[in-house]
Amino acid sequence: MSVDDAVARATASGFEGTGREDRARWLEALAEAIAGDRAELVRLAAAETHLSEARLDGEITRTDSQLRFFAGVARDGGYLEATLDAPDPTTTPPRPDLRRMLRPLGAVAVYAASNFPFAFSVLGNDTASALAAGCPVIVKGHPGHPETSRRTAALAERTLAAAGAPDGCFGLVEGMDAGVALVQHPGVAAVGFTGSERGGRALFELAAARERPIPFYGELGSINPVVVTESAARERPDEIATGLVGSFTRDAGQFCTKPGLVFIPAGARIEDAVATALMAAPSQQQLTEGMTSAFAAGAASFAGRSDVQILNAAAEAPDSAPTVVITDGEAFTTDPEPFLTECFGPLTVLVRYLGDEELQRAIGSLDPSLTATILRGQGEDVTALAAALAPLAGRLVFDGWPTGVAIAWAQHHGGAWPATTASVHSSVGASAIRRFLTPIAYQDAPQAVLPPELRDHNPANIPRREASSTDASRVPRD
Amino acid sequence: MSVDDAVARATASGFEGTGREDRARWLEALAEAIAGDRAELVRLAAAETHLSEARLDGEITRTDSQLRFFAGVARDGGYLEATLDAPDPTTTPPRPDLRRMLRPLGAVAVYAASNFPFAFSVLGNDTASALAAGCPVIVKGHPGHPETSRRTAALAERTLAAAGAPDGCFGLVEGMDAGVALVQHPGVAAVGFTGSERGGRALFELAAARERPIPFYGELGSINPVVVTESAARERPDEIATGLVGSFTRDAGQFCTKPGLVFIPAGARIEDAVATALMAAPSQQQLTEGMTSAFAAGAASFAGRSDVQILNAAAEAPDSAPTVVITDGEAFTTDPEPFLTECFGPLTVLVRYLGDEELQRAIGSLDPSLTATILRGQGEDVTALAAALAPLAGRLVFDGWPTGVAIAWAQHHGGAWPATTASVHSSVGASAIRRFLTPIAYQDAPQAVLPPELRDHNPANIPRREASSTDASRVPRD
Repeated sequence: MSVDDAVARATASGFEGTGREDRARWLEALAEAIAGDRAELVRLAAAETHLSEARLDGEITRTDSQLRFFAGVARDGGYLEATLDAPDPTTTPPRPDLRRMLRPLGAVAVYAASNFPFAFSVLGNDTASALAAGCPVIVKGHPGHPETSRRTAALAERTLAAAGAPDGCFGLVEGMDAGVALVQHPGVAAVGFTGSERGGRALFELAAARERPIPFYGELGSINPVVVTESAARERPDEIATGLVGSFTRDAGQFCTKPGLVFIPAGARIEDAVATALMAAPSQQQLTEGMTSAFAAGAASFAGRSDVQILNAAAEAPDSAPTVVITDGEAFTTDPEPFLTECFGPLTVLVRYLGDEELQRAIGSLDPSLTATILRGQGEDVTALAAALAPLAGRLVFDGWPTGVAIAWAQHHGGAWPATTASVHSSVGASAIRRFLTPIAYQDAPQAVLPPELRDHNPANIPRREASSTDASRVPRD
Repeated sequence: MSVDDAVARATASGFEGTGREDRARWLEALAEAIAGDRAELVRLAAAETHLSEARLDGEITRTDSQLRFFAGVARDGGYLEATLDAPDPTTTPPRPDLRRMLRPLGAVAVYAASNFPFAFSVLGNDTASALAAGCPVIVKGHPGHPETSRRTAALAERTLAAAGAPDGCFGLVEGMDAGVALVQHPGVAAVGFTGSERGGRALFELAAARERPIPFYGELGSINPVVVTESAARERPDEIATGLVGSFTRDAGQFCTKPGLVFIPAGARIEDAVATALMAAPSQQQLTEGMTSAFAAGAASFAGRSDVQILNAAAEAPDSAPTVVITDGEAFTTDPEPFLTECFGPLTVLVRYLGDEELQRAIGSLDPSLTATILRGQGEDVTALAAALAPLAGRLVFDGWPTGVAIAWAQHHGGAWPATTASVHSSVGASAIRRFLTPIAYQDAPQAVLPPELRDHNPANIPRREASSTDASRVPRD
């Protein structure tokens, strides 16, 4: 379908006017449909992406859950931020009857990711949250899995039509030109993007340069620093080494939350444990040839340096070899840049630190990331370390690994540039829906004009904030 | 102060780490200080802006209220959106203990407006909401009221220091070069701007072009359409005419919410009533010479057209004459552009419409605005009209005037481009604080690391959303 056709269909769909319960049912129908076509989708995606069938099967389950989760978010209605103020003529200026809630922004362009052919692709998180918000969606399919994308899109269109959703509320476009045209189309009201810093930045700039700029939510790359404290390294080196190697090599390390930079105490036995665990790490082919060669180039950039040591697991072409780069805190702090460049694939950098001061200096040179992780000793107080890492990450993980981003009300997947283009919103979790909503306030509106969510006596039965429920003494009115 | 110094002081202030109760007290101290210096501030501002002392006195009261309002918002703590999820190992992927809240983004640059020398200037709404959020503020003063700005800034610095706020959490810079340098400074994390479309767009593009882009919240111009229904025009022409003239000429019409385009039924007596009310409208000098001449040029652009009629109230230089431009629905819909260009000052355009169809066509040509207003007859059903106007406005006003934006939890002051650059947030009301906040999620964090707002048993006693309080049957977990 052409971009013009897809956007015209979306903007004419009337999807913004649909009810929350209807949208919840449509999301559940999509969840059921994708889970029901599991075998064929997994087969197609495995052939296109080289990801394992077990992983893809799990990803179908994740996508199913995600669609159902956003059905629950839509039904719950708390996301509307419904807020009511009673009139008060004594304030300056006088306060009328004001009722505020969020409403859909309009047609959303979703740029699918390569590394999650289901969960961050055609019916992935951006699509689910936009549909839940009441926004029609045009997906720009990722060229890494075209047949998977087309089959998912056809399934979505059939399912939505059968469930009674408005025509045109979902569409798929393909190709680089379509991607450029989509972000510039006057009918598109917002953009969700998951991908590289370069691609995201280019589209972000197109969105800002439009005659009428629109919000652009790009989730880009991330280095995801991990700090292993001295106590943790001493207490459980093998467990940490196995966990780290499992996390950074899983699915060929192709995660935006891959731990790409790990600070370990100098001289710790954990280094040997990582070397041992690495030998057992399976290799795997990456998603595309482009990624395979970019990974090889990234890994090769460390070769020949006298201040790094490189460990490789065995691998035969076309697989990428799991790689650990080891360096000292001094080499790192002298010129951190080479170690901070994300190498998409199964590579991580270990930085040996000599004491707290060197660690603090190293942390001071880090760019913002989606996550930061602390592995601590039993009962160890890591308050100071957490305070140093918190400003650098959207999610602070303790004694776990950053991969495997849970779907939850309290999830946050974001961070300051270069982790995302829009550092104030999340692309995973319930609040991802907020990206595609905009407020409206009704002033002295008759009941009939108000959406049920804002009417007297809360007939829609949603969480609301009402002036009468706030403590007036804490909220000066004059 | 230089931009470099001001930003360095702000980023070193540690203000992000201050407590909500402390910030609430500092905001209250600022409110008390500005109200306490009322006489001298009003005198200075009257000389610099030509606004009346009565209006400026009222604006001091508004500014005082606004600062206290945000003190209440900070104390309340609901703005943190604290959300807790209990762990669940049975989900795909497994759900850890997740706790999410909002935190300050960092140093905020505030570009003061010309038309509110207090309420949208140095200690205005952007500053109050940013300080409440925990963000240090650097104000770029408006050149239209430099002495007022300096006195307010000095008052703020003294007051904050006396109240124990961290050094450098507030600063003032001045001049066009400083304005350009500020939005580009690496230490600035977000921008609040109130002003013209041209100025806002230029700064917005600088923010997007930074090596690390930052959120830019620009509240720009607006035409603020008003529809007078046939019933309303028949029932209360004089009241509406008097209200309209009062609203669009108040303070020389220098409001972003000035009703600049009013649809009236053709042949209605209300047109005569407006002419009569206009004759009684007082003229006033505009804020600056530049605005006075821009207004004259805007008004002159309608002169000599055979399809418009122009009514002027009497005025002598340097005042701008209150002006009503009248045209037909046909002339408007044939070429709406000249009527949709905001003319900042005491001018409004009346468009006579012949029936619903012409009105609908005219509405279809409108740009988004901050507000849209419906004046209806007694008990008249305006559901269809409200549905047509709602997509065009951030606030939908019934049987009132859009000027006089109340300070409230449910207020929304925003809208799609060209009303604002960032159509998903408000610049007035409690949610204005959201612009300067970014989420963080804590995963499996020890209690000692968590802010009190996220600890077990809610020791900070703030509104939170806890997984256990959601209806599990409505939020699928698997």
